[in-house]
Amino acid sequence: MPLLEGIEDALDPARVAAFVCKPTDDPVHESRHIEALLSKRVDGIIVTSRRTDPRIPLDLRGSTIPVVYAYARTTSVEASCVLPDDEGGGFLAGQHLAALGRARIAHITGPERFAAVQDRRRGLCRALQACGRTLDPNLDLSGPWSEAWGREAVGRVLASGTPFDAVFCGSDQIARGVADALRESGVAVPRDVALVGYDNWDIIAAATRPQLTTIDPCLEDLGRTAALRLLGMIESAEQAAGTVHIPCRLIVRDSCGQDHHQAAEKAA
Amino acid sequence: MPLLEGIEDALDPARVAAFVCKPTDDPVHESRHIEALLSKRVDGIIVTSRRTDPRIPLDLRGSTIPVVYAYARTTSVEASCVLPDDEGGGFLAGQHLAALGRARIAHITGPERFAAVQDRRRGLCRALQACGRTLDPNLDLSGPWSEAWGREAVGRVLASGTPFDAVFCGSDQIARGVADALRESGVAVPRDVALVGYDNWDIIAAATRPQLTTIDPCLEDLGRTAALRLLGMIESAEQAAGTVHIPCRLIVRDSCGQDHHQAAEKAA
Repeated sequence: MPLLEGIEDALDPARVAAFVCKPTDDPVHESRHIEALLSKRVDGIIVTSRRTDPRIPLDLRGSTIPVVYAYARTTSVEASCVLPDDEGGGFLAGQHLAALGRARIAHITGPERFAAVQDRRRGLCRALQACGRTLDPNLDLSGPWSEAWGREAVGRVLASGTPFDAVFCGSDQIARGVADALRESGVAVPRDVALVGYDNWDIIAAATRPQLTTIDPCLEDLGRTAALRLLGMIESAEQAAGTVHIPCRLIVRDSCGQDHHQAAEKAA
Repeated sequence: MPLLEGIEDALDPARVAAFVCKPTDDPVHESRHIEALLSKRVDGIIVTSRRTDPRIPLDLRGSTIPVVYAYARTTSVEASCVLPDDEGGGFLAGQHLAALGRARIAHITGPERFAAVQDRRRGLCRALQACGRTLDPNLDLSGPWSEAWGREAVGRVLASGTPFDAVFCGSDQIARGVADALRESGVAVPRDVALVGYDNWDIIAAATRPQLTTIDPCLEDLGRTAALRLLGMIESAEQAAGTVHIPCRLIVRDSCGQDHHQAAEKAA
């Protein structure tokens, strides 16, 4: 949805309307969408996905209309892709926790096969290295994208006895499970353990107790950039090749214990 | 999303594709969407909304293309509307709780100005009347559509000392807040208090402890019905006037204490 809002924001002043086809993993469906779009004589196509792993390029049946991949990556090097900076997001989280004096950061995240999981971990490790630390393999846990996994992972870390004073999670859902399990085990967030989520998904982040400090992938910016690229390609009749990464933002709420006011001052 | 899936399911065999415009409350945006759709020579329009309260009819600038309102209602009596049966949903919840022997049912729901809030309450009251009971005004609380409101409302009910053995909530989010607050106050769900949510929104209902028994508004059925109506109108060139209500389904999980197996047997 925020992606779509960014797209519409950019298309609106150009008086261009967006038609949205239901995302599908089914090639037959996708093929039918493409046929319908081409027959309706659209001026360009923005392709999105639920994940940032490479997909095969769109089959345009020889048409040369401009295509931009937004929150999607393709196996073709010639494609125009706009991606979230997942590595940068992981870095921001690690940097924030390190700046708050947290020395033993756990990483509880989604399935290892997701590019986003690997990219965010890489960023976290980069931030740790910057202060001479590494990620303890006993504190690095991959599992499903769910609250239940967040709760289970906390149970495992506590049972292992490995000390930790912060957790960076691969999603706000996982972070919510982590927050609940810590509270129910008598571990105070943020006093004993600081917590950073990922996604800035209001429904989850604002309902967590305490409210989650999290990484916002800025999907609205991503959508806007994709739409502007597409408009540029339509006007110039040139294919803008290459990949651009959209920077993330750190959203400070209560789960790291830093006062909002202080954080705002520091950022200014 | 489920609405859209239902629409696509119905359109697919007819080899008709759906273009989706971003929902908007802004008349200027909507007007631009209509222009774009008409200029792209679409065969019909399905209008949806975030709520079921009456809206002004779409301004088609004299075009006679068929329009169906899905999960949307209009002030025009000639319109073709497909709506969820919110009253039926409230009735199902009340009936289920009564069948489990719960005698004092609280109702914790969203803002009073929503048609859905009033319709669901009416259904609940009808189910209570069927067993000679009424809804205790001390146990009928309206507030925001949020988990925090669910928690706050439980606090108020407990503080008032009014006895209750069940809660029917206006949304799964509210129900989740209710479940958390009851557990943290030492009230066991479902043993002491049975709990029914509304929406069958997986992300929330399955993450709640215990998992929520809830009302599924069957948005996929709703979308399918709307699309079939539209196809019928396109083929016959007739405007199918009138409103149809799509029945809800009770989804039994753990928050009412009825064994899944028993429930399945009873339904069979």
